[in-house]
Amino acid sequence: MITLYGMSNSGNCYKLQLLMANLGRDYAWEEIDVLRGENLSPEFLAMNDRGKVPVMKLDDGRTMSESNAILHYLAEGSELLPADPWARAKTLQWMFFEQYSHEPYIAVARFIRKFLPADHPRRASLDALTASGNEALAAMERHLTRLPWFGGERYTIADIALFAYTHIADDGGFDLGGYPHVERWLKRVQAQPGFVPMREADRTD
Amino acid sequence: MITLYGMSNSGNCYKLQLLMANLGRDYAWEEIDVLRGENLSPEFLAMNDRGKVPVMKLDDGRTMSESNAILHYLAEGSELLPADPWARAKTLQWMFFEQYSHEPYIAVARFIRKFLPADHPRRASLDALTASGNEALAAMERHLTRLPWFGGERYTIADIALFAYTHIADDGGFDLGGYPHVERWLKRVQAQPGFVPMREADRTD
Repeated sequence: MITLYGMSNSGNCYKLQLLMANLGRDYAWEEIDVLRGENLSPEFLAMNDRGKVPVMKLDDGRTMSESNAILHYLAEGSELLPADPWARAKTLQWMFFEQYSHEPYIAVARFIRKFLPADHPRRASLDALTASGNEALAAMERHLTRLPWFGGERYTIADIALFAYTHIADDGGFDLGGYPHVERWLKRVQAQPGFVPMREADRTD
Repeated sequence: MITLYGMSNSGNCYKLQLLMANLGRDYAWEEIDVLRGENLSPEFLAMNDRGKVPVMKLDDGRTMSESNAILHYLAEGSELLPADPWARAKTLQWMFFEQYSHEPYIAVARFIRKFLPADHPRRASLDALTASGNEALAAMERHLTRLPWFGGERYTIADIALFAYTHIADDGGFDLGGYPHVERWLKRVQAQPGFVPMREADRTD
């Protein structure tokens, strides 16, 4: 059985939980608390020498990092990763967008607001993160006026990748009320078969 | 014929030129000077409403952005993109690493040093960019002690993606002398069939 190592309140790790639930596949989950440094243990560093979560381990011991690469591997052969080369590459286009132009602003703003002390110096970067995060949300909004999903006409791993931090963007101070197509897309993702919410010990909603 | 729109002295755009040269494929190139704002023309924004280069356009008018997604589309069916699902996902692992943990530091440090005035306030970020860029180079060095290429045993689009900004890392103030495996890998990329150097009007070496 595949083992996934991650921290449940990390959006990058939740992506994998959501995909496996959508696919109805079993897996073993090993919780790694990064805030306690569990990602720096010798055992974890042997799997990923950069100490980043999530990590996937196969039965034969092979390991993979980078959430979106893991999504791609796990979705191969399913309807959540198109077989057509154009549709597949468009799916990847939005997954690269997510890692380059979305996560570094929306996830990082959330991290600073939610996990760092109120007087932390990184709060000085919040204005710039908010501006760039809103540019990402605006690009998503424009796309969703033309197509229902990020990969095109069907739900794919591009939607899973973008859902992870968009649906908790309010934690980073973003107001999704200005992005009505994004809000409706979030609801469509939540209506997919097998949907599971993100687990957050300190989240009550 | 496929048309590629980009700025030749952008590493993200050079990736596509290198791949097409490795594949021995013809294409049309349209130079877009971002420093002169040519990426903000109505014609360009109609292809990519975020005004980012590179962009690929097919004969039927379909367009794609994100350099690494375009690499994936163009390499499909060739030896430069493995067909095996594990090898393909490992190739993507390093391409996501490139966009998340390498380009934002190594390419951005180059941009600040090479294209902005000596008294520009963004120079204040160079120390942090240098530290994070060296972490990326160290991760590459560790990988290359175990395998000859980033996708595994063969040259792939992961190598092309990482070569683009690594081979000009000195422009960003990085010293590759401390990364001997990386230096030897750069030479192996340069020895691949069809290799073309990056075109830079203001570069003489």
